Amino acid sequence: MAIRPVLVVAGVGNATGTGAATARLFAKAGYRVALIARNADRLKKAAEEINNSGRRGLHPCHLQIKSYRWPSQQKAEIRVALYNVGAGVWGKFLDISEEDIQSVVDANITAAFAFARQIILAFKENEVDELGRRGTLLFTGATAGLRGNVTTSAFSAGKFALRALSQSLNKEFGKENIHVAHAIIDGVILTDLSLTRAAGQGLSDFQQNADIRLNPESIAKSYMYLANQDRSAWTWELDLRPAHEKW
Amino acid sequence: MAIRPVLVVAGVGNATGTGAATARLFAKAGYRVALIARNADRLKKAAEEINNSGRRGLHPCHLQIKSYRWPSQQKAEIRVALYNVGAGVWGKFLDISEEDIQSVVDANITAAFAFARQIILAFKENEVDELGRRGTLLFTGATAGLRGNVTTSAFSAGKFALRALSQSLNKEFGKENIHVAHAIIDGVILTDLSLTRAAGQGLSDFQQNADIRLNPESIAKSYMYLANQDRSAWTWELDLRPAHEKW
Amino acid sequence: MAIRPVLVVAGVGNATGTGAATARLFAKAGYRVALIARNADRLKKAAEEINNSGRRGLHPCHLQIKSYRWPSQQKAEIRVALYNVGAGVWGKFLDISEEDIQSVVDANITAAFAFARQIILAFKENEVDELGRRGTLLFTGATAGLRGNVTTSAFSAGKFALRALSQSLNKEFGKENIHVAHAIIDGVILTDLSLTRAAGQGLSDFQQNADIRLNPESIAKSYMYLANQDRSAWTWELDLRPAHEKW
Amino acid sequence: MAIRPVLVVAGVGNATGTGAATARLFAKAGYRVALIARNADRLKKAAEEINNSGRRGLHPCHLQIKSYRWPSQQKAEIRVALYNVGAGVWGKFLDISEEDIQSVVDANITAAFAFARQIILAFKENEVDELGRRGTLLFTGATAGLRGNVTTSAFSAGKFALRALSQSLNKEFGKENIHVAHAIIDGVILTDLSLTRAAGQGLSDFQQNADIRLNPESIAKSYMYLANQDRSAWTWELDLRPAHEKW
Repeated sequence: MAIRPVLVVAGVGNATGTGAATARLFAKAGYRVALIARNADRLKKAAEEINNSGRRGLHPCHLQIKSYRWPSQQKAEIRVALYNVGAGVWGKFLDISEEDIQSVVDANITAAFAFARQIILAFKENEVDELGRRGTLLFTGATAGLRGNVTTSAFSAGKFALRALSQSLNKEFGKENIHVAHAIIDGVILTDLSLTRAAGQGLSDFQQNADIRLNPESIAKSYMYLANQDRSAWTWELDLRPAHEKW
Repeated sequence: MAIRPVLVVAGVGNATGTGAATARLFAKAGYRVALIARNADRLKKAAEEINNSGRRGLHPCHLQIKSYRWPSQQKAEIRVALYNVGAGVWGKFLDISEEDIQSVVDANITAAFAFARQIILAFKENEVDELGRRGTLLFTGATAGLRGNVTTSAFSAGKFALRALSQSLNKEFGKENIHVAHAIIDGVILTDLSLTRAAGQGLSDFQQNADIRLNPESIAKSYMYLANQDRSAWTWELDLRPAHEKW
Repeated sequence: MAIRPVLVVAGVGNATGTGAATARLFAKAGYRVALIARNADRLKKAAEEINNSGRRGLHPCHLQIKSYRWPSQQKAEIRVALYNVGAGVWGKFLDISEEDIQSVVDANITAAFAFARQIILAFKENEVDELGRRGTLLFTGATAGLRGNVTTSAFSAGKFALRALSQSLNKEFGKENIHVAHAIIDGVILTDLSLTRAAGQGLSDFQQNADIRLNPESIAKSYMYLANQDRSAWTWELDLRPAHEKW
Repeated sequence: MAIRPVLVVAGVGNATGTGAATARLFAKAGYRVALIARNADRLKKAAEEINNSGRRGLHPCHLQIKSYRWPSQQKAEIRVALYNVGAGVWGKFLDISEEDIQSVVDANITAAFAFARQIILAFKENEVDELGRRGTLLFTGATAGLRGNVTTSAFSAGKFALRALSQSLNKEFGKENIHVAHAIIDGVILTDLSLTRAAGQGLSDFQQNADIRLNPESIAKSYMYLANQDRSAWTWELDLRPAHEKW
């Protein structure tokens, strides 16, 4: 019996964003999917919505990321992992609270390091596959990971740190055929939340106009592409933005 | 009758590298392919080798890039273009000749601007397709486009300039739904030339070991991926390197 | 009576490095100097050593950075501040402990944000001086703040975050005539510690050969230069490395 | 008799900008100054204006940069050189002419390489001085050297190339104690030309308000600082912008 590949996604929010779209796309391609979140109710809801969309094999894990272990009795290999945990902290520097900073640190450093550790350890147990890989670890980054700005002192600190982690891991584990990549999302992603906000701002064409915001499904496709690169040509980093985005 | 999409490739060398692999892959996917080179004999040879490999529709153009025009009587639309022209100039700064500098300027600036101009003009005549694009213009870049180094004073100057061009074009023409992207090739590509060099250095596993050099076919796949991104999530830049590359 | 300008230095270690050299140089130029450290003994020792070197006006503050306040009864204005706190964590990713990560976060994020907050608040109370400044906030960064690498997953995460903070602050507070700058130290600084290490590695010329390591005094001069830039030409970032450093 | 140090400046325009300010500042500090330009009338005028300002020792050279040689009969050593040649080409990509591209190439590549070659050769004949230097070669860069943008396809190509050259030279010649540095000017410099333009735009406070434009004298001070760094702590790159510049 073939061992079925597993995708682990940390960060699925309310199932309308990047994490969920990635889960759906990989499930459709034959992966089993494990979802990780720290809120049991949102996790359960996300898993149900994704399963109801007709994909099978989702494996909701209500687990602290730090203590996450894939159930050992199952014939499964974690082959792809996505770290998609964010911390939406924006604001003037003097308005940033200690709690804001802590949430940025938790999402982009503490949990990211813990997640990466578990995934790298899991990948190291895999054989190199026919494309030369033990596994692919993906990180969702942001433009704030490249440039600090007037309302991003906290957010950028986190996203810079996450980008640093992904680059260090890419360099350290490439020689063990573990692929680590980082996507810079430069624009607003179409989710329930951004849709509500756009409506509040009178942006009636936000949903319809794919030139001005990112589809989660399109981001998911980039992750699928990255997860299928062969060993001779791996990408550490790519950027993604809508056609009409000013940058 | 459906209009068949055209890929234009500038820079196919001796048909064993990135330009030719891209031509083959897009031909296989249904594109007509136009090859541009400044040397008629090499161009003819490249076209023959590519056609002999079983792909059809190659359209060798022995033309100066500056005066390139797609034959107007044909029902065809240029939808993808690859600028893959290089100038292999390395060496100590004081050994760089004026001719070296001129060849770097020609390859990375003069011809690149002329090519981009023709392609952008062609794209502007296209309708926006179902994925929101008038066309995709791809540039083959290099690590030397990110960092100058002790033997790359001339080469880096050219590759930095090419990268600047691609970024400016991306920003200027995105709002017209023209997609411009830049691939940073960070490593040695497996070609006839690099294979010969590796043999000379006693690197017996250079051909077999995909962990240490790039397959042209894998680079071509990245171009296919970029050319298929929908308008909501376009990449300007990605890097590509072998799994074991030290960087 | 003229108000004497104050330099606040966070991070003076054992008084042989950058923080102490900066304290000495600014003291010589007429500044009063406040030292901040979290270890009372080391702080006292550092202050004594610096005062014994013939400079006056050092003001050792045994204070948690977070709760630091300049003694309000004194006629003094904080005009320059240096955040020079490091966290020397290097190692393979799988060897990085949670304590390592925490110490990186403390040094580069938690304490850095708290320090910056106090300093910015202090600067906002200053008048704009004749060179157009309310104050200058300096950060000691590192090459690891630009690039992650195989032994710097934790260290880089911290230094990237610190760089992001400095850039965000520069952009946010420039319009209030508060100058924020970041120095990338790319090489080994000559300190008691690095000298001992070099001796252990048989590097007999490490102390004598200024081509291969950084003088703390030279870094201090760069801080003096930055602190004296007029409002028309402020630097956010500069790099500093020995002449023979390979990079 | 002590050998008097020489500063060579390429690019002095009409004597109101960065090149001229640098010439004046170094002349005041005891340097002899050689001016290089390709227009004899403007060069003569610049030299006269600078000499009339009370500085001595200016040495106007009406010479093609490529054939520039310091008069060999004079007891003088070129110790500092500034490449300050620009090419003000902005505009939409499709409006850029071949002449525009050529002028960008001439200013940022052809002439820059030729100038750097002459200067490096001159520096190599110098002894290492007490600060560990044979010479300092400075380049005036621009923000367009870091990022392409919608109206900078040509200008950025040039400035990227110039930045690449400066970085390559820094890495190659540092080990010979030749210091190469690059200043990113991020904003409008106060010159006759920019003053006229600002007046045309109704910017009445452009001259008076140092928060919104760069003083050439302040840029010159940064060059003086760079030219005085000792071998243990050399800067390759720094940025300079007005306090209120949005970036």
